[in-house]
Amino acid sequence: MQTFRDRAAAAYDAEHFRRQGHQLVDQLADYLARATRGEGLPVLPWAPPAENVARFPGTFPEEPTGEFSSFMERVLTHSHHLHHPRYVGHQVSSPLPLAALCDFVSALLNNGMAVYEMGPVSTAMEHNVVRWMAGQLGLPESAGGVLTSGGSAGNLTALLAARQAKAGYDAWSGGSTAGPPLTVLVAETAHYCIARSTKVMGWGAGGVTPVPVDANFRLRPDALEGALAAATRAGRKPIAVVASAGSTATGAFDPLDAVADFCERHGLWFHVDGAHGASAVLSPRYRAQVKGIERADSVVWDAHKMMMVPALVTAVLFREASRSSEAFAQEASYLFQGQDTRRWHDVGLRTLECTKEMMALKLYTCLSLLGTRLFSEYVTETFELSRRFAERLQASGDFEVAVPPDCNIVCFRHTPKGLPASEWDALQSRLREQLITRGDFYLVQTTLPKGVYLRTTLINPLTTDADLEALMEAVRRAA
Amino acid sequence: MQTFRDRAAAAYDAEHFRRQGHQLVDQLADYLARATRGEGLPVLPWAPPAENVARFPGTFPEEPTGEFSSFMERVLTHSHHLHHPRYVGHQVSSPLPLAALCDFVSALLNNGMAVYEMGPVSTAMEHNVVRWMAGQLGLPESAGGVLTSGGSAGNLTALLAARQAKAGYDAWSGGSTAGPPLTVLVAETAHYCIARSTKVMGWGAGGVTPVPVDANFRLRPDALEGALAAATRAGRKPIAVVASAGSTATGAFDPLDAVADFCERHGLWFHVDGAHGASAVLSPRYRAQVKGIERADSVVWDAHKMMMVPALVTAVLFREASRSSEAFAQEASYLFQGQDTRRWHDVGLRTLECTKEMMALKLYTCLSLLGTRLFSEYVTETFELSRRFAERLQASGDFEVAVPPDCNIVCFRHTPKGLPASEWDALQSRLREQLITRGDFYLVQTTLPKGVYLRTTLINPLTTDADLEALMEAVRRAA
Repeated sequence: MQTFRDRAAAAYDAEHFRRQGHQLVDQLADYLARATRGEGLPVLPWAPPAENVARFPGTFPEEPTGEFSSFMERVLTHSHHLHHPRYVGHQVSSPLPLAALCDFVSALLNNGMAVYEMGPVSTAMEHNVVRWMAGQLGLPESAGGVLTSGGSAGNLTALLAARQAKAGYDAWSGGSTAGPPLTVLVAETAHYCIARSTKVMGWGAGGVTPVPVDANFRLRPDALEGALAAATRAGRKPIAVVASAGSTATGAFDPLDAVADFCERHGLWFHVDGAHGASAVLSPRYRAQVKGIERADSVVWDAHKMMMVPALVTAVLFREASRSSEAFAQEASYLFQGQDTRRWHDVGLRTLECTKEMMALKLYTCLSLLGTRLFSEYVTETFELSRRFAERLQASGDFEVAVPPDCNIVCFRHTPKGLPASEWDALQSRLREQLITRGDFYLVQTTLPKGVYLRTTLINPLTTDADLEALMEAVRRAA
Repeated sequence: MQTFRDRAAAAYDAEHFRRQGHQLVDQLADYLARATRGEGLPVLPWAPPAENVARFPGTFPEEPTGEFSSFMERVLTHSHHLHHPRYVGHQVSSPLPLAALCDFVSALLNNGMAVYEMGPVSTAMEHNVVRWMAGQLGLPESAGGVLTSGGSAGNLTALLAARQAKAGYDAWSGGSTAGPPLTVLVAETAHYCIARSTKVMGWGAGGVTPVPVDANFRLRPDALEGALAAATRAGRKPIAVVASAGSTATGAFDPLDAVADFCERHGLWFHVDGAHGASAVLSPRYRAQVKGIERADSVVWDAHKMMMVPALVTAVLFREASRSSEAFAQEASYLFQGQDTRRWHDVGLRTLECTKEMMALKLYTCLSLLGTRLFSEYVTETFELSRRFAERLQASGDFEVAVPPDCNIVCFRHTPKGLPASEWDALQSRLREQLITRGDFYLVQTTLPKGVYLRTTLINPLTTDADLEALMEAVRRAA
């Protein structure tokens, strides 16, 4: 009879792992070759949820069974293929294969990182990569921060620090009722996670005070005074302005310098949600887009968006490193025994997570081994590609763009001659549905004040002008 | 001159990836062989933070440079080795190599999962694995939930649902001031993330009402009425009781059935933080430890603790699946266009994260290919091992345990003959420091009412009785 020791020895057997690992590497390399060439597989294998729920049922055998390679083949086949050059959908990277290798290492080592001694290498890498990112933004030497699980968690972390710094009372220990109800000023086009963060913190619907945007979907600095007055009239104490770089739907970059001026004038915390666009600082040509970001009190920057690494790795960067400790405060004797709670190297003190992955490893390794120029040129090239795409759409006569792109997000719609404008919205939805169910392209859609638009993020470095011309043709054919 | 296209083609080259992948598999397999045998490497290579910060500096080259294998060798050498049988530290798993392979696949595919179409396979797997977990807990057919980035995020998610269900007012839209300030009753020994969650939500220090524990560090059900009365006197509205299964410091399991009775009587939400111990349901021998968990309104269960997969994968399970949608509510036109926001398959609606990893893949794959018996026996065996270890300590004459273990966490201290009790605390701290700086064992320490204790989690399935005898010997030698 097999004992548990036998089972465990088999499950952890290094030679078995070696065989499966080599099989998997070949399988993934073959897959990557096909996906990057865009050959022999669709961008996405559309199937309704119920079909995949039935394909991967929720019943598990008691004893070991099944074959790893064929199992993984089914996973590869039925997943979405982000390395396909015609993947132009959400702001999720087509990951660098080297970064995937790093996640593999992270998963095997599982160095949890709440305290330094559990993740000595990843903690050191995090410290240095966070400081490098702060430097790229132009933040002062005093800057610091952490890596966390995604932009939503990152924005919440930054807003907790803002609350602690600017409420005028100890909201952490005293609670929301220890002083006036708070609010942050934010463009009406900001990511939903900002309003969600304030609702998590118990500020209710008034926790965000919307600031109107201009025709280019950028926050209107001239509207900030009015928003501030409106918030105050509503009995709220404004503590911060959240600017987007860029906004999610259209990729618009709010005018950061003007927002910084306003925050300075009123003593407000200046937070930049740069989840997508903070990477613009890496491009000499486009860093002017985020001019003013160096004046922020806090910045959120997702490496899994415009730094080509897999989800999730979000940097929360603070102008003053000490703010990073103020976002949270707690005791846990078994973890942080009696020490100075500001010890930078026990990062669990400063993140929403206690345990987390070795997040820094992929970012640190890719920067170290691939060099920074790849990242810098990547930003420049995807931004350029988007400008050319927008120009081509505008020049076409049967497409229009919602707005000239600030970054690599392009919203457009097909307006075929003879079709009344009243039917444009329905057409875009139908077109998108047809394109994704056929699987030739993956793009998304969004509703803007002028109506429904197709939305593309040119985030795959392998996407070319020819792919985008083909997209226009595919849209025309579908229409 | 190299163009960006050349650079990108090189960085995404499938054959280069294949070569590096095969190299890495051999490197990791060799590493795993050494680590699992506990040969040729310490459990942890202790070095002060500054040393690792200098070893992995924050300067990056512009051009590609360096060699992958030697770089990774340095990462392996200076990291913590959780597969070493003498790793008996924090509640972080020694991951199944198969699970690491799955994370590798997840990282390359990067199927983000906020919406179904971005992660069709991982969404389906998540749906089924969450339902399977709910079934194991004994929750009814109506149960549902999500996977999220760690126990802290999971507990916050559950408490947001509790707030929405039990505040008696719409705390989400109305904010904390729309009704009386809230509180949850929780054992004074609970994980810090519970108090932290309530402080994030703006409930202040009174957001948790501590309930005393008994001599075994378990919540005292007879103290609940008193805690409820005290909270009410303090002007708080109690909405929930949070029970631990088990608590972090000592692994104590609160009496869930008694807490459930109390919650029923008072109409309170019953939440179980089973991050570590919910896995007890998998063991026929030990599932009685969590009797009553099937009556919970919500349960948090970390697969990266007692299910042998790498961090982070936490299930938040709700008795009524609809509660999972109520924790959050938002609109994001570019993501969730105009649909029923209760669509189960767009999981971003129900998690703190928007994008997340293909979390379900590792758990689903390991259950499918390794079978459930491995997991069931793993719980039984690590719990048994801990009981034997506690008995050996007690019988030794020069060790004592803080409390008979409820699970696989054992707190003990060395009490050598002749040493006055007043010096025991200092001794344990010194012992722990010596042991981890030598690197022969990794264990932690915790401060309990009776003083400082050494704390072990017997979470590595390869740890044997002989390793624990060796630990006792090492402690004696160090003393």
